[in-house]
Amino acid sequence: MGDTPRSSQHGLPSPSYTITLRVEVPASQRATSTLVHAVAEAGGAVMGVDIVHSSTTALTVDVTCDTVDAEHGEQVRESLDRLEGVRVLKMSDSTFLMHLGGKLEVNPKVPLKTRRDLSRAYTPGVARVCLAIADNPEDARRLTIKRNTVAVVTDGTAVLGLGDIGPAAALPVMEGKAALFKQFAGVDAWPVCLDTKDTDEIIAIVKALAPAYGGVNLEDISAPRCFEIEARLREELDIPVFHDDQHGTAIVVLAALINALKVVGKSMADVRIAVSGVGAAGSAIIKLLLAQGARHVVGFDRRGSLHEGVRNGDAHRDWIIEHTNPEGFAGSLQDGLEGADVFIGVSAGNILTGADIARMNDGAIVFALANPTPEVDPIAAGETAAVVATGRSDYPNQINNVLAFPGLFRGLLDVGATEISDELLRVAAVAIAEVVSDDELNPAFIIPGVFDSRVAEAVAEAVRSESEQHLASTRSGTDDRAALYATEPATGPAVGSAL
Amino acid sequence: MGDTPRSSQHGLPSPSYTITLRVEVPASQRATSTLVHAVAEAGGAVMGVDIVHSSTTALTVDVTCDTVDAEHGEQVRESLDRLEGVRVLKMSDSTFLMHLGGKLEVNPKVPLKTRRDLSRAYTPGVARVCLAIADNPEDARRLTIKRNTVAVVTDGTAVLGLGDIGPAAALPVMEGKAALFKQFAGVDAWPVCLDTKDTDEIIAIVKALAPAYGGVNLEDISAPRCFEIEARLREELDIPVFHDDQHGTAIVVLAALINALKVVGKSMADVRIAVSGVGAAGSAIIKLLLAQGARHVVGFDRRGSLHEGVRNGDAHRDWIIEHTNPEGFAGSLQDGLEGADVFIGVSAGNILTGADIARMNDGAIVFALANPTPEVDPIAAGETAAVVATGRSDYPNQINNVLAFPGLFRGLLDVGATEISDELLRVAAVAIAEVVSDDELNPAFIIPGVFDSRVAEAVAEAVRSESEQHLASTRSGTDDRAALYATEPATGPAVGSAL
Repeated sequence: MGDTPRSSQHGLPSPSYTITLRVEVPASQRATSTLVHAVAEAGGAVMGVDIVHSSTTALTVDVTCDTVDAEHGEQVRESLDRLEGVRVLKMSDSTFLMHLGGKLEVNPKVPLKTRRDLSRAYTPGVARVCLAIADNPEDARRLTIKRNTVAVVTDGTAVLGLGDIGPAAALPVMEGKAALFKQFAGVDAWPVCLDTKDTDEIIAIVKALAPAYGGVNLEDISAPRCFEIEARLREELDIPVFHDDQHGTAIVVLAALINALKVVGKSMADVRIAVSGVGAAGSAIIKLLLAQGARHVVGFDRRGSLHEGVRNGDAHRDWIIEHTNPEGFAGSLQDGLEGADVFIGVSAGNILTGADIARMNDGAIVFALANPTPEVDPIAAGETAAVVATGRSDYPNQINNVLAFPGLFRGLLDVGATEISDELLRVAAVAIAEVVSDDELNPAFIIPGVFDSRVAEAVAEAVRSESEQHLASTRSGTDDRAALYATEPATGPAVGSAL
Repeated sequence: MGDTPRSSQHGLPSPSYTITLRVEVPASQRATSTLVHAVAEAGGAVMGVDIVHSSTTALTVDVTCDTVDAEHGEQVRESLDRLEGVRVLKMSDSTFLMHLGGKLEVNPKVPLKTRRDLSRAYTPGVARVCLAIADNPEDARRLTIKRNTVAVVTDGTAVLGLGDIGPAAALPVMEGKAALFKQFAGVDAWPVCLDTKDTDEIIAIVKALAPAYGGVNLEDISAPRCFEIEARLREELDIPVFHDDQHGTAIVVLAALINALKVVGKSMADVRIAVSGVGAAGSAIIKLLLAQGARHVVGFDRRGSLHEGVRNGDAHRDWIIEHTNPEGFAGSLQDGLEGADVFIGVSAGNILTGADIARMNDGAIVFALANPTPEVDPIAAGETAAVVATGRSDYPNQINNVLAFPGLFRGLLDVGATEISDELLRVAAVAIAEVVSDDELNPAFIIPGVFDSRVAEAVAEAVRSESEQHLASTRSGTDDRAALYATEPATGPAVGSAL
């Protein structure tokens, strides 16, 4: 899930609200210490003080500090303005500065400095490569960017916790996502922010764009449209289609649960699991838990547990009813926690108290993943639960999709995968869980950190080996280097020695 | 136009057909010289000989040489195989090697190494940037990749001289185009290869994709669909839409003609101009010539000159009939050249002879731009014409669109342009022409070379100043750095000092 903006109720200064105040102060020994003191008084965390300009009578100083939110930043500014002889000249915001001009660029991988370069990379030489692909379309995975590209597709209808803010406003998130793809797994991802909410049109567009991409990552598309878009694209495209809000979340949740169960010494098959929230994420989590052998799962929505008595014709909801809650429990989430071993929340903030968690079995596992405010205060939950995880970075055990999608697509692209199976998602989760060694494993470390470089490669390797068992027939060699250089007649003379 | 693949009839070894032959030869003083001699005998141009491995009895050598085409490469290979004791182990092809894995990559412009980076570029910090854009959509041009991105859009129906080869086979060309955009003007261009030929669907798709792009470059879409696609997109989008096959070609042709007229001392208003080919390129060229003051233009298609007598209801053809050929000349292209000062061919190869060109006035200007084979052999035309230009790089005066599109979009993006006017195309052409100083100007140098670094900046500057006169009302500050940093409340605190 990653974080979404925290409200000031969680009064912690954060690097996502770093400001720089340029102030003029009377020249004196105590000038800067006075500023630092005032910022600290106002609740800001000072990162540094830089003298920009000095005269015999005055100093111009840049004070950089973390604040809680934009409002708090204004308060810090005012607290400095109020100081005797101090004048704030300008306030700047590092997050906005970082976004100026966007966060991605497109670069040539080949030199274009000479006529010789141009004759190969562009005309006339490129024509032969075009004809080779026309004769043998599979070569597009070898001779074009399709080999390493993923489309990050959104319509901007369910962006972070912000809701339907539209495709233009969603772009910074998709750019960030693409940056993470490259940073963590060397995948060339490109934002596709669509100015339409029409399910059929979105499907038609993604299908039309597919020739240039080796995979599709659906992102922040609101339910229930996201289900049909994903299902139909998976059926109609010959490249893998992944919906991160569903499958990415489910992978990381399963990975974390596998390790949490080790910590408390319980087994997937035996534990009673309560899942709050049965939307895109919730239903994908439930499916993956069942695939991993969970047998006692109960789903809850706002009105209580999902059981035969509350069918309403919604295909996804009814699927959950048919495959979970074997005992047919009917009741509220609070009552459902009675005797439960695991709580997984992907619903709304502050719907549970520490007392509700206390009703769970000993060695309770609590994943409160709602953002920015978890279903239950992690501190309160920790009073009785053995393991607590959230979607946030300021508590232990952050459930963050960044652990899943880069390595997953790295593996899929490496083998030229044409689809994603549930088994593939499962092995990816197992791979993430196994990155945490038994020596590292403890209640505050059930899942690797987002910057753990072992994760992406472990996931990619698991995906490659799983895929190779299923894709032998459709791969046409794009999965091994040797084949990459052994070129059929269609693509001209064999290539390789010059490499 | 750039080049398209030359057929062996042109018998010149070319860097676009460079091969490397790995051969085993008996160890001797004369080993490599024998190889070089044999390759030269077979018509290959040796680029270099590298010893890969040596033993007491044998050498393994990589012979790299230019060849005429794939067939000729095979002939060179066989000529070495026939040599006493020589064995060709492998033949590789530098053009295909260069394309392995594609020619573009997507890179983050911001660091993502620490939690602090992540909190700003991605969640939770990014949410504030999203909200700023939701509140003030124009900020997308400031805070996202839209500021510097161009979509290179094709359906693969008219690729180079290859025709309808489809979107996947067109991808290497679009990748090359995007690489040139970055190389020559720092523009981040991305290939959009559409798997549909439906005009309405292509228009709908490009409109839906627009939020992430600051401009659209239509490429290699067959006529007449390209006319409607361009016209409707220009009408319905608030970003500039450019059809390179029409406008790029027209710009460079006008630039070359402006300088060619200087060489022969004639004026645009007085010269008689015959244009062979009235498709996408031809009609755009005619429009731009008229905009520059040409008064005596006659268009020709396969059947002869366009005049009132040959109206057929085709809007573009009829427009030409209404705006050209004031004397109502009716006749063949050959007869039309009688007394003409300028011939511009964007039609088919070998439709004219040197004798036809000889019927033109003294100081004739001949632009034979058909590819790979010009309308008339440039050497034959040069016997009577004062200035000859082609679309090829192996004769003087190459008319290459690379001179126009990078600088044009650089300028458009810099000012946040929302449209492209005919006047904008005209000033771009004048800017290219003016790059050639009076000291440089001569019959063999009427247009700058494609690697002339002065061109893109000159075009960009011309576009910026022209645009700024027309776009003041729609710019909202994206065109000047000062405004860039003066952020409205909607986008949070003012930014800048930390830069």
